[in-house]
Order: sequence, then C-alpha cells, then structure tokens
Amino acid sequence: MQVSVIGSGREHEERAEAVGRLLAERGCTLVCGGRGEVMAAAARGAKFAGGTTIGILPGSDRREANEWIDHVVVTGIGPARNAIVAASGDAVIAVGGSYGTLTEIGFALILGRPVVILEPGLAVDGPVRAATPAEAVDAALAAVG
Amino acid sequence: MQVSVIGSGREHEERAEAVGRLLAERGCTLVCGGRGEVMAAAARGAKFAGGTTIGILPGSDRREANEWIDHVVVTGIGPARNAIVAASGDAVIAVGGSYGTLTEIGFALILGRPVVILEPGLAVDGPVRAATPAEAVDAALAAVG
Amino acid sequence: MQVSVIGSGREHEERAEAVGRLLAERGCTLVCGGRGEVMAAAARGAKFAGGTTIGILPGSDRREANEWIDHVVVTGIGPARNAIVAASGDAVIAVGGSYGTLTEIGFALILGRPVVILEPGLAVDGPVRAATPAEAVDAALAAVG
Amino acid sequence: MQVSVIGSGREHEERAEAVGRLLAERGCTLVCGGRGEVMAAAARGAKFAGGTTIGILPGSDRREANEWIDHVVVTGIGPARNAIVAASGDAVIAVGGSYGTLTEIGFALILGRPVVILEPGLAVDGPVRAATPAEAVDAALAAVG
Repeated sequence: MQVSVIGSGREHEERAEAVGRLLAERGCTLVCGGRGEVMAAAARGAKFAGGTTIGILPGSDRREANEWIDHVVVTGIGPARNAIVAASGDAVIAVGGSYGTLTEIGFALILGRPVVILEPGLAVDGPVRAATPAEAVDAALAAVG
Repeated sequence: MQVSVIGSGREHEERAEAVGRLLAERGCTLVCGGRGEVMAAAARGAKFAGGTTIGILPGSDRREANEWIDHVVVTGIGPARNAIVAASGDAVIAVGGSYGTLTEIGFALILGRPVVILEPGLAVDGPVRAATPAEAVDAALAAVG
Repeated sequence: MQVSVIGSGREHEERAEAVGRLLAERGCTLVCGGRGEVMAAAARGAKFAGGTTIGILPGSDRREANEWIDHVVVTGIGPARNAIVAASGDAVIAVGGSYGTLTEIGFALILGRPVVILEPGLAVDGPVRAATPAEAVDAALAAVG
Repeated sequence: MQVSVIGSGREHEERAEAVGRLLAERGCTLVCGGRGEVMAAAARGAKFAGGTTIGILPGSDRREANEWIDHVVVTGIGPARNAIVAASGDAVIAVGGSYGTLTEIGFALILGRPVVILEPGLAVDGPVRAATPAEAVDAALAAVG
C-alpha cells in the first residue's frame, strides 16, 4: 500500500516524522513531494523505520529531492505535480500545510482517495480529522481497508 | 485583461452569468474550465455582453466545450488542468464550487493571483469575499490594478 | 477552426509568418507555444492578416508571451505544455523545429490530429509533407475537412 | 541510478525483457510507463533479476499497472505523462516504439538526458544507437558516468 503524506511548515516536522515512521512500520510505502519540511521529515521517519520512500518533484532536476528519498519522480510540471502526489497515494495524510496542500487535498477528494487531516490542520470540509500521528495512520489504513 | 471564473453547482449559475456579463462589459476576456454549470453560465454571460471566452478543457476532445466558448484549449491532462485555469487569469473569481474549485483557489494563491470568493462560497482562508457579482468583479479588477 | 503552428529556428521565421498569414486569411485561429522564433513569426503573420492568436506558455508568467499573442494560456507545466499545443489544434503545421517540435508531432499523431511538415522539416514518419506555406495550409485544412 | 525504458510493440518484448534484466543486474532502478508490451517486459526482466521497478501511469487508477511494477505513480495526466517518464530516468533506452516513444525521446533530449535507441528502432536524429540489449545498457550507463 502507498500512502501520500502532504503538508508544510517547520513546526509540523516532528509529527510528520512520526507519521512517516508509523507508515513504514505498518508496511506502507511513503509517497511525498520530495522536497523539504514536512516532506523531508515524513521521509526521514519512514527511512528510520526501514521503509521505502518515493518523492514526486515539481522541477526537472532530481537533485532537488531530499536525502531520504529512495525513488525520485522528476515531473518538471511545477505545482501541478500536486495532482500526482495526491493520486499516487491509496490514502493521503495532511500534516500542517498551506495553499499547495489545499490543492493536494482537493485532488485527493476529486479522486475519492481517503484523506486524513492531522490536527492542528487546514480547515477543509470533507476529510477525517485525527488528533495524533497514530490516529491519523490508523484512520488512513482503515479507510483503505 | 483575463479573468478566470471557477466554480460549480447549478444553484450558482445565475450569479455566474452575471459575473461573466460584468467582466465582458469591463473589457475582460473570460477564462474558464470550458464545461458546464458555472463555467457555461459565466461564458454565456460574457457572450451575451459581446465578450470573448476561453475554455480550458480537461479532456482531449474539443467537443467537450460548452457552446459559449470561443477558443478551446484542449489539455488532455484531466483535473490537473485546474492549475492552468487558475494560472491563466490575472485574477480569479470563485462562484460556488467544490473540490476542483478548491484546487484552483490553491493554485491561484500559490502564484499570487488575486482571488475573490463570491458569497455564499467555499470556506478558504486568504481570498477576498464579495457579496454580489458586481462587488466580486470590482474587487478582482481593483486587485489587478 | 484552430490550427497549431509548431517549430523553431530563426531561419524558418519567414515561412512561419507566411503560414500564420495564410491561416488567418482562411479564417483559422492560430494556436502556438507563445514564445519566440517560429511561434512569434506565425503569430505576427496571423495578426498582420487580422487573425486571432492563442499562445500556450510553458511558464507561469504571462509576460513570457510574444507581442503578437491575443490570448495567453499560462500553463506552468514546462515542456509538457507541448502536449496541449498539439491537442489544441484541429490540425498541426510544423515549420523547422527541434526536440520540442518532435514531442508536439508525437502528441498530435497520438490524438489523430492531421500533421503537416513544411519542407525542409524534421524527419518523422507519418505526417504529410508540403513544399510551400500555401501547400501546408491547404493540406492542413483539407485534412480537417 | 534510475534508467527509463520506453517503447512499444509485442515483437520487441524479448529484447525489452533483456534490457530490464541487465539494468537490474547493474543495480539500476527501472522506470517505465507502467503499462503493457515493452513496459511490462522490461519490468518483468528487472524483477526476475531482483531489481526494483517504478511505473508512471497515464490514468488515475493504479490497477492499470502491470504486475511487475513495485511502485506506482498515478499521474492522471494522460499521454503528457510521457514527459515524466523521460525526465525520471538518468538515462533513457528506447526499444521499438511509436508516437508516444517519439515524445519521450524528444523530452529526454530537451532535458539533456542520454538516450540510447536499441536497433531496430525509431529514426530520430541525436540518440546513440545500440545493436544489442547489452550494448544499449552499457551505452546508457557509460553516458551517465
């Protein structure tokens, strides 16, 4: 199973790392946008737990990827790559985030992917909300079934 | 000047048509997603006022465009075309809408495009909110300057 | 009818301008990539003949468009926008060109769009080849029917 | 290192499988378009040799991937995903192929990725040509350095 972790904000990195670690421990491959902050923290957490990570970059140079990415997808399509980050997860977990995260949540909901927002998170109608990283991972995996 | 009108929902068509008409009367070219509901209503309003309309389609067949579109952009990239609808407006006005509209608002905000949400509209932090079509058009044009 | 003119190379500008002019005289809207060389020359030809031009840009800033573009589509998806330039023409005419033109020809052929290569042009199996701008425009319009 | 294998045609599957196997034996991750024929054969070859495979799909349903894909990238952007297949390889090897392969070769050349065409292959100016799967893999890895 592949789970996409989306978001941004340095203040959310610790929780993102916990989410990444828990996903890896549950046998999930982590998908993210491949860059910094929440994306790097989630990937680092996954790698510390022996997991596999995929980074889907906006630019055309694979060196943009953070050091915790195993497999780099170089899109070259800019922020529109957010559609691909969302679509490539069987479920999506949002940790913090801003406008880009909003687009990823929107795309995930268009495609019917389960979305879990870890508190404190963006105000968007629709997704399940979780109080802790463990709750977020449980909710995402339960939704995929 | 090009203004993108985004949104969905049959109950919002009348206000979308008013937005389209007002934009055309102010000399703006209308950009939209080229399909039905709010997109078609806004384009119809623009055409009734003698304006020009551009429809940016998700699919690869130009016959998907509604009858009020002058120039059809056939993207073939699916919902990711929302990034292009948002980017192609000097300003963006949202009328009603759902998940796709959420992605367009997010992309517009990433690019720094002024976004106006016509009430009753989506709950998103950041954009200006307007009570009437005239207020929405005034706010969008004022923001572009 | 919309016809996409694709290609590059300063040495091909004069013929590109003739193609643009002839398309406008036949009542076609010109679609191109919105940038320089063949794209600008074709758009200039169309405007000199009173036609309408659409430029589909790779970047996210509409000021990248050349001065002959009426309607600017801001994709922000980089060279992948070539797929949209190809798809948005009911027919495609290639004038000169290099690797980007190769991708546009490929996408047009995938979608079944008629492709005409103006000599001297790229070596690609499949498209009709034309000796002069007038022949290229005739062939493109005949293929659309 | 990641190497993209592109192409199509059932008559090229045996050689595609050899390319995939050789890449895996050399420690490369195989990137492909995730669907059938050459893409499936190359991925099968890589898996038989214990390698890792990434499939970058055009559609929005991960079940479109062939059975030899470890990590599925769900783009939803249609044939424009060819730009991503090309960009995600440090080098690109073409086996057989048609119009879609043409677009991938074009994108790889735009980005400066080394491209090797395995004979008998498409007629495109620029890429290195190789007579055998082993020669193709050698040439691709030598070009990346």
